[in-house]
Amino acid sequence: MDDSELDGLLGWWETANYLTVAQIYLRDNPLLREPLRAEQIKPRLLGHWGTSPALNLVYAQLNRLIRTTGARMLNITGPGHGGPAVVANAYMEGTWSEVYPDVGRDLAGLLRLVRQFSTPGGIPSHVSVPVPGSIHEGGELGYALVHAFGAAFDNPDLVVACVVGDGEAETGPLEGSWKGVRFLDPRHDGAVLPILNLNENKISGPTVLGRAAPEEVHELLHAHGYAPVEVAGDDPRVVHREFAAVLDAAYEEIRTIQQAARTGGAGAAGRPRWPALVLRTPKGWSGPKVVDGVPVEGTFRAHQVPLANVRENPAHLAQLEAWMRSYRPQDRFDDAGALVPELAALAPHGDHRLGATPHANGGRLLAPLDLPDYGAYAVEVAQPATSRAESTRKLGELLRDVYVRTETSRDFRLFCPDETNSNRLGAVFEVADRELQDAHPEDEAIGPGGRVMEVLSEHSCQGWLEGYVLTGRHGLFATYEAFAMVSASMAVQHTKWLEAARHLDWRAPVASLNILLTSTCWRNDHNGFSHQGPGLIDTMISLSGDVVRVYLPPDANCLLSVADHCLRSRDYVNLIVIDKQPELQYLRLDAAKAHCAAGAGTWAWAGSERAGEDPDVVLLCIGDVPTLETVAAAWLLREHVPELRVRVVNVVDLMALSPPEIHPHGFSQERFAELLTTDVEVITAFHGYARALHQILHGRPNAGRFHVHGFNEQGTTTTPFDMVVLNEMSRYHLVLDALRRTRRVPSGAAELERWCETQLTRHHAYVREHLEDMPEVRDWVWTD
Amino acid sequence: MDDSELDGLLGWWETANYLTVAQIYLRDNPLLREPLRAEQIKPRLLGHWGTSPALNLVYAQLNRLIRTTGARMLNITGPGHGGPAVVANAYMEGTWSEVYPDVGRDLAGLLRLVRQFSTPGGIPSHVSVPVPGSIHEGGELGYALVHAFGAAFDNPDLVVACVVGDGEAETGPLEGSWKGVRFLDPRHDGAVLPILNLNENKISGPTVLGRAAPEEVHELLHAHGYAPVEVAGDDPRVVHREFAAVLDAAYEEIRTIQQAARTGGAGAAGRPRWPALVLRTPKGWSGPKVVDGVPVEGTFRAHQVPLANVRENPAHLAQLEAWMRSYRPQDRFDDAGALVPELAALAPHGDHRLGATPHANGGRLLAPLDLPDYGAYAVEVAQPATSRAESTRKLGELLRDVYVRTETSRDFRLFCPDETNSNRLGAVFEVADRELQDAHPEDEAIGPGGRVMEVLSEHSCQGWLEGYVLTGRHGLFATYEAFAMVSASMAVQHTKWLEAARHLDWRAPVASLNILLTSTCWRNDHNGFSHQGPGLIDTMISLSGDVVRVYLPPDANCLLSVADHCLRSRDYVNLIVIDKQPELQYLRLDAAKAHCAAGAGTWAWAGSERAGEDPDVVLLCIGDVPTLETVAAAWLLREHVPELRVRVVNVVDLMALSPPEIHPHGFSQERFAELLTTDVEVITAFHGYARALHQILHGRPNAGRFHVHGFNEQGTTTTPFDMVVLNEMSRYHLVLDALRRTRRVPSGAAELERWCETQLTRHHAYVREHLEDMPEVRDWVWTD
Repeated sequence: MDDSELDGLLGWWETANYLTVAQIYLRDNPLLREPLRAEQIKPRLLGHWGTSPALNLVYAQLNRLIRTTGARMLNITGPGHGGPAVVANAYMEGTWSEVYPDVGRDLAGLLRLVRQFSTPGGIPSHVSVPVPGSIHEGGELGYALVHAFGAAFDNPDLVVACVVGDGEAETGPLEGSWKGVRFLDPRHDGAVLPILNLNENKISGPTVLGRAAPEEVHELLHAHGYAPVEVAGDDPRVVHREFAAVLDAAYEEIRTIQQAARTGGAGAAGRPRWPALVLRTPKGWSGPKVVDGVPVEGTFRAHQVPLANVRENPAHLAQLEAWMRSYRPQDRFDDAGALVPELAALAPHGDHRLGATPHANGGRLLAPLDLPDYGAYAVEVAQPATSRAESTRKLGELLRDVYVRTETSRDFRLFCPDETNSNRLGAVFEVADRELQDAHPEDEAIGPGGRVMEVLSEHSCQGWLEGYVLTGRHGLFATYEAFAMVSASMAVQHTKWLEAARHLDWRAPVASLNILLTSTCWRNDHNGFSHQGPGLIDTMISLSGDVVRVYLPPDANCLLSVADHCLRSRDYVNLIVIDKQPELQYLRLDAAKAHCAAGAGTWAWAGSERAGEDPDVVLLCIGDVPTLETVAAAWLLREHVPELRVRVVNVVDLMALSPPEIHPHGFSQERFAELLTTDVEVITAFHGYARALHQILHGRPNAGRFHVHGFNEQGTTTTPFDMVVLNEMSRYHLVLDALRRTRRVPSGAAELERWCETQLTRHHAYVREHLEDMPEVRDWVWTD
Repeated sequence: MDDSELDGLLGWWETANYLTVAQIYLRDNPLLREPLRAEQIKPRLLGHWGTSPALNLVYAQLNRLIRTTGARMLNITGPGHGGPAVVANAYMEGTWSEVYPDVGRDLAGLLRLVRQFSTPGGIPSHVSVPVPGSIHEGGELGYALVHAFGAAFDNPDLVVACVVGDGEAETGPLEGSWKGVRFLDPRHDGAVLPILNLNENKISGPTVLGRAAPEEVHELLHAHGYAPVEVAGDDPRVVHREFAAVLDAAYEEIRTIQQAARTGGAGAAGRPRWPALVLRTPKGWSGPKVVDGVPVEGTFRAHQVPLANVRENPAHLAQLEAWMRSYRPQDRFDDAGALVPELAALAPHGDHRLGATPHANGGRLLAPLDLPDYGAYAVEVAQPATSRAESTRKLGELLRDVYVRTETSRDFRLFCPDETNSNRLGAVFEVADRELQDAHPEDEAIGPGGRVMEVLSEHSCQGWLEGYVLTGRHGLFATYEAFAMVSASMAVQHTKWLEAARHLDWRAPVASLNILLTSTCWRNDHNGFSHQGPGLIDTMISLSGDVVRVYLPPDANCLLSVADHCLRSRDYVNLIVIDKQPELQYLRLDAAKAHCAAGAGTWAWAGSERAGEDPDVVLLCIGDVPTLETVAAAWLLREHVPELRVRVVNVVDLMALSPPEIHPHGFSQERFAELLTTDVEVITAFHGYARALHQILHGRPNAGRFHVHGFNEQGTTTTPFDMVVLNEMSRYHLVLDALRRTRRVPSGAAELERWCETQLTRHHAYVREHLEDMPEVRDWVWTD
């Protein structure tokens, strides 16, 4: 690299550093065209300086790489607290002003730029949804690399640069995500170039990797499958020059690996050793070295705002001004406040700019998923509640054919901890392999280029899917219900991302994040208490109603209808909850379609209403096992107390129960009353934690009349029916509750009550003696 | 090791393998004293064979090490799905029968042993709470090593062996936990000996580390700071002999490291390189090699039950019998069914046995925490709501003195991502360092032997604390509220552990798991939407009421009282929620004590009731910011509509609002009515997600009269007051709601309504123009 090119790089870097500091501190005088005065300083100083100079270096260098190679790149900023750095670069390359025309490339725009930062009505201090070029929120740490790999899968021409801070590198999810490289196929996938930035410190002390010996860091990345190269130093000219060289070499190596794989035939080369960079630079590099006699640059004290109380402390104000002037703002912008042409020319053009790449605004690239007609996978239901099927197996068949239809477009993947078969979705393996570079010839359905993603990490599965959908593709994360809580926090953060994106016109809608929860609490009877927990529902229902959808299809045909809807939807987080074990089937295809489209409905065949009369009691069921117990309870009531008028209502779309002002799916009060009356007692069987339903129902007329039987944190290793007994959701409990609460006590009620109690007593004895369900419970089907 | 010792080891191993298989398959004929018949096979075959032979090898080898060295050891089984293996060993060493006398060391006991496994009314199929010697549930994977390190901290004589499976090694939390070794002090802490068991497969395919080159595995552990040694093979004699040698060497190295550190003075040796073992053995080792022509041993097919349909398939039955007889049960037990003396003698004695160590039943070792009188840290409150303090700073001072008092006992630690200072708990650093072996001389409050644990991983922090308290010590995990969701799943699992332990008399109560949530949603105005999420409350309130406690102290003195209570409590998960920023103080020490002891109470000074009359409206507040807004609202009502009778109620103990049948802290209906009436409208301000409160209140009289203002998933980077406005919980919103709902409209109401609306309009303008709170809001204090 010649000196003029180096000077350009340094010029860009210093300007970005300048704009970073300006955003943190200034509310006026953005180019220091007059002496800096206290009142030009923001009243509240926010933002993270420490990580920013390294982020600015990476951005400048990636720009150069893109310009010289024409590479398609995506930049993921793990140390996203350095928001002002990425904003500065997006502004310098012009994308910021294109997306936000009120922040123009002139003095007025510069003023808005610095004022908007970390200000009410402005933008957050972290890399966040409003930042063009980002698919990664810089808040909760740990997911930078999984997002990078998710973006790279099935994007053969894309190179995803991913800066990982040494703070984030301490988190479990990040440590676990290095192994993504073993699932990256050089033929069909793009590349991920990790850039581990070691500045040695986090908020208030040293980091593990910052203090590890350089050989240990090298060894760690090498052990994970990379060929790491380190650049270390604090002389900007030296570091920039060296980094440019290793970046060029890394890019060349990436293309060499890809070319070899793409011309050498399937699995020609074995798992490649991908390049990775280690960048060791001082924290708060080029900022104040010492403040009030205490070292700052290179220490944890540079983490956030290195000079505090600048408004009140003239010495700090002077030090700030000197620091800012060291970047020579007067040479970087013209009279009008526009970046000088020599610097502006260093940005790539058009969509090649990191802030403008459509891969970071995936909706721009999104094509509708090529779905088959789901009716082809329907189960036959001759009569409701008389035959059994494994509902998720039908979904697996549908997904198999999605794989077939997307074989060329490669825009769909299924992500799952090692449970695809266990979750009865194994039909996909008829047409698609699990991806693993280290496959052996004798493996079953495993190989390089596979499109089913199995890794025993909910974090990696969910994070990969997030990166995959945010870059414009489709997918599904299927996982055990109880262990979905492992990545609950990621679901929260993704929901927040989508909620924020809804308010930005320029962000095109992306495919929804679809989460299938199976192996549910009710049927983890064999695995025991630690595997029994429907808590993700609780987590999701409190989040934004504009984003969250929760579906509890009671059977296979409803699952197909729901899945089809979710796979076509945009910008949601869809939670689908259904078990994988053989279960009773209720609705024929047409009925299931209509039922799911409505979200909820009365099942007349199961009830015993008479036309024109109000029911004596309503049985409401939500979820597959609750529906089974409710239908069985309705049948018992019909058999034993035929004069009782019972209505059976099934809900597929959980949030339909919510008041419409809380969730857009909430039924109007009229429709709610039509379905559930305004005053009849409602014996409710709910899949999730029983009391969570009350938070949904609040605001409905006489909400106190809903008596919810649901998961009650009672469980152990036992039988399926014992699970519903332990949690008092069994058919006998529902019958007893109905008889206790009905507005009209039918003849035969006392007898039926006694019979139910006897059944419960018998159950307790039987299950403990025979270690299984009583046959009549296990084998029950509806009979007329 | 001579041949007879090796024969002993193999004998133990084969017997444990036998009993493992017997538990999975048999319901009768436990020693195969007659030919095996189909009806002696369990109706449902559950359990995991694949990992079990390696677990049996480790147990046998640890027994030998303990016998030969007298070591105090704790065994943590990461692949806890191999429950029958650990149960088999606990039975063979005698602890099982001591804890469960109905499972004696005779034929009848053996019959119960095999029958109880994974059977209703029996024990789970995983290593779980009922297993003596375990502090680690074998369900959700990822936490084996963090639990091991937590157990080792401040246990200088303890060696914690920790088996990590290659499935679990794919999880983020496990990958992140290898770095625990950098926080382990050889002078004051015990040792952790990781045993990475590579059997190459998980449920249905290969693992990443199983398929990695052996050099990569070596490199990975070496990079993390260990000196790994691998033993690989499938010949039991060879593997046992080699493993014994490397285990002896590892133990010797541990003692050498410790002795050097303990005699060499502070930091004499730098961070030691601790031993780690890699054990590479076939999955399902010594089980069926081929079933129905398909390879099983050494493949994923050995993961669970290698021979299925044994009842129906005579060939499988015969293969099972041959397999079981290959372990020669007739030579292992005497006529009465007791283990033969040569084998029984291989177990260590008394509390040295892995199943009997008191470290795995920490309550046996627990001493009450030496707490100072918390009154000494109280803030002065001349008059309620007139002065501010950083509440958590007072807690920090209390914790500082807890560190002083426990300097010798070393039975308390604070765990926190790198936020101890940020959370205003930094007073602890006056007397205690952060632990980090790689400390530098210029570091502040960081060094080997430190007792404050900071690592940027919620998983590691919480997992270490779990291991620490389950082995009989005390601690606190302090974390940002929003990011507490990162380890929410661990909190769920720990709650389940404690719930199960409550039902086992032999498990002595342990110190509670205390979680302090600070930097809360309301005051993460500067960090923005990704940092705003009170969701852990939602997660916890659905769990067992016998374990979960949720406290929302409104000020410093209440926080001190609550913290004192929690640190003295046993067997709970205590959630304490309070912000760290300067906030109004309400209660003097005595009043705070009484208020917290009651759990909730009327604040007469803030209300405007008249004796003997019912209030017109109740203002209920829960949490610090909600209390501020409520008290300000009450003041506005008093000023502007003095004739209105307002009651102000503050709740510290959230679950007091719950019906008593749901949570033991739930107030009786009488007490509830006394406090909150049965029919007056209650304008409620709640710290958490607004609607979550309705799930607590359901079942209270006229629950529909509670109108909850709380977090509504509205947020961004803004001002503190704008946060309460965005979520409609501001004083103005509360006043407006009160005036709208009061049973008696006072004179001046319309004027006050208009005034409040004007204030909200002014706020919107002001905050966006001045980028800060309006001064009158920011500076408001109570004035009479």
